[in-house]
Amino acid sequence: MQADLICIGNELLTGLIENSNTGFLARRLWSAGIEVRESIVVADEMSAIKEAFYRALDHSNIIIITGGLGPTDDDLTREAVASALKRPMELNKDWLDRIELFFNQRGMKMPENNYKQAMIISGAELLDNKAGTAPGSLIRWKGKLMILLPGPPNELVPMFDDLVLPVIKKYNKDNLLMLKTLKCCGIGESTLENKIKTLGKWDLPPLSYIARGYEVYLQIKGRGTPEEAAWEIEEAEARLKNLLGDYIYGSDDDTLAGKVAALLTSKKLTLSLAESCTGGLLSNMITDIPGSSLFYQGGVNAYSGALKNRCLGVDIKLMEQEGQVSKAVAEAMAKGARNNFNTDLAVGITGIAGPDGATAGKPVGLVYIALASAQKSHCQKLNLGGGRLAVKERSAQVALDMIRRELI
Amino acid sequence: MQADLICIGNELLTGLIENSNTGFLARRLWSAGIEVRESIVVADEMSAIKEAFYRALDHSNIIIITGGLGPTDDDLTREAVASALKRPMELNKDWLDRIELFFNQRGMKMPENNYKQAMIISGAELLDNKAGTAPGSLIRWKGKLMILLPGPPNELVPMFDDLVLPVIKKYNKDNLLMLKTLKCCGIGESTLENKIKTLGKWDLPPLSYIARGYEVYLQIKGRGTPEEAAWEIEEAEARLKNLLGDYIYGSDDDTLAGKVAALLTSKKLTLSLAESCTGGLLSNMITDIPGSSLFYQGGVNAYSGALKNRCLGVDIKLMEQEGQVSKAVAEAMAKGARNNFNTDLAVGITGIAGPDGATAGKPVGLVYIALASAQKSHCQKLNLGGGRLAVKERSAQVALDMIRRELI
Repeated sequence: MQADLICIGNELLTGLIENSNTGFLARRLWSAGIEVRESIVVADEMSAIKEAFYRALDHSNIIIITGGLGPTDDDLTREAVASALKRPMELNKDWLDRIELFFNQRGMKMPENNYKQAMIISGAELLDNKAGTAPGSLIRWKGKLMILLPGPPNELVPMFDDLVLPVIKKYNKDNLLMLKTLKCCGIGESTLENKIKTLGKWDLPPLSYIARGYEVYLQIKGRGTPEEAAWEIEEAEARLKNLLGDYIYGSDDDTLAGKVAALLTSKKLTLSLAESCTGGLLSNMITDIPGSSLFYQGGVNAYSGALKNRCLGVDIKLMEQEGQVSKAVAEAMAKGARNNFNTDLAVGITGIAGPDGATAGKPVGLVYIALASAQKSHCQKLNLGGGRLAVKERSAQVALDMIRRELI
Repeated sequence: MQADLICIGNELLTGLIENSNTGFLARRLWSAGIEVRESIVVADEMSAIKEAFYRALDHSNIIIITGGLGPTDDDLTREAVASALKRPMELNKDWLDRIELFFNQRGMKMPENNYKQAMIISGAELLDNKAGTAPGSLIRWKGKLMILLPGPPNELVPMFDDLVLPVIKKYNKDNLLMLKTLKCCGIGESTLENKIKTLGKWDLPPLSYIARGYEVYLQIKGRGTPEEAAWEIEEAEARLKNLLGDYIYGSDDDTLAGKVAALLTSKKLTLSLAESCTGGLLSNMITDIPGSSLFYQGGVNAYSGALKNRCLGVDIKLMEQEGQVSKAVAEAMAKGARNNFNTDLAVGITGIAGPDGATAGKPVGLVYIALASAQKSHCQKLNLGGGRLAVKERSAQVALDMIRRELI
């Protein structure tokens, strides 16, 4: 049971738009037990689309095609698939009404070329689009499923989750390959692998390791009927959780920031931040989480010494003596934030993200992260590489993990 | 003159890792006048790699293969290409020494399986890898170029830019299709298109429009010899710049934040920020720019009223009267930051990112952005949609554009 993905659009082949649909669809299909055999990006050209479609039909049971459902002349997906399947196109009057309403509600008349978005391949089931005028299509043909989805992710994602995934789950019932990702942090890939080797021979489907900066993703698989696959996943998860404990912070769609937010919310604790070298990245990650205003009071991005003194009360003499990038200043920033902003926890981060700013004994990548709570304050010293953005990213992740470990 | 891209790796087909190489390579190839015909992701399987390789050979002059150059058993790219071209593999003794040195410098002995990374397809030119143990390969065959690159972007990007791009530019001299992207902001896609229609018939290669949130990218093309292609690009750029003026903020790899940073640096002006609903995103975007510490003093992510008062001096009564999401508070935040942090410019942003937090008359997506300078303070009111992250993103972009327009 496998799927082929075909993404259509010149803008993907010029690199003007990053293709996030492939990753999204692959993750969702795996979660439903469908293996993705191949993913291809082709241009807005009839022959290229048809060639890719025929090839996919030769190999896979499920073919998902994204993009090319717009109203303009270079949107050719419907026509190409209809021609490949030798089916006519038919006007869907209901959808035409929907498109006209869409424009009327915005005080506009429907442009002529949107008419073609109401033309549906004969025999296709129409998939509703809540965010745009391009409907999706689902075609069942010789035991295979063909699915046409609009390219913009804000239209594709809800359409897939609400209307396609349930059909696929029903379609593929007894021959699953299920996947679950356990997300670990604070442990390196090879250390993790060696730890797991202590379990002896692994008699479940093989594990995969993927290193992602501060995190390592551990993929477990289950195969067979839903019961068999679920049992293998549960069994692998139980063994690994027992072995790895707090190194595992979550699974699948979980993020470190989301985990920290959930812990703070459930414990009714508040947080403030004092960032220097991360420049607001950590605050941005926290405030990406809906509901973060429940626990997050705010923070200071204190790039200059003046701001560290003014907003965080860091002693100017201390900065002169120890340097702005020092354990003492990181701790003073955390304590200052905690006191000034009256929160249960506070984090202070100071370091040198580079490329400039290194001094004798303080290289680019040197970062101090302090966590202050009512009970204590402690500080981690890091020596990071990989350039400015990597130093910011890794520092923010370590800080999140320090908060997480404080709370579990 | 066109290229095919083949990306190899199971981790791309499970969606565990986003494929950023395709976008990067496509942009670079276009900039060198090479059109990307097709981009495909295949699994770590000999037959799948060979099938994709043969197909690419049938269609394109340049074939770029990424990934599968590692030391483990499932890294099969070298073997697949050698087999497809019917060429033997040969040990490259110099590279073996390099790998051994790489491990020795880290106090380790080279693991047995890294030996295979020193096996090179006979006749291939070896491409140095400064960040890892997998060398790239460049093969010339029947007038075509085949290029094997490691998958990790930190290894692939410098290898491509330093060693591959110069070869490709030499290879493709007289039949260019050059591309340049003019980046516009503060104007909608259809308004832009209508403005351009006032120029009359467009007798240069056709323009493409790509809407990207607050920005619209306008792609211009040039064709023919380097001189012909450059002339068409220059001519199109001159006409469009004359028409669109300040709506164009830059081109190609430029970003709004980068543009603002360059303007502040060259004018020797300083900046501070007071963010509420954007939660540090704007500060993070600014501090992603190397050298931003030259002009950026820092900022406050004032999620709570207490922080707005304490760090920015926003009057508590004002917040009670007007509400925290109001023009008056945005302006007080900007002025407070400017005074407290002693900068030439300051921005204050307050709004409701959602999904919660709406009140009567103040819906989710309502955002006020104020810019304070020595001369004046002005404020924009926005009504944004698209969810929490979109509201944050758009607000930060509008703020950047306000700073940019203040400085040009």
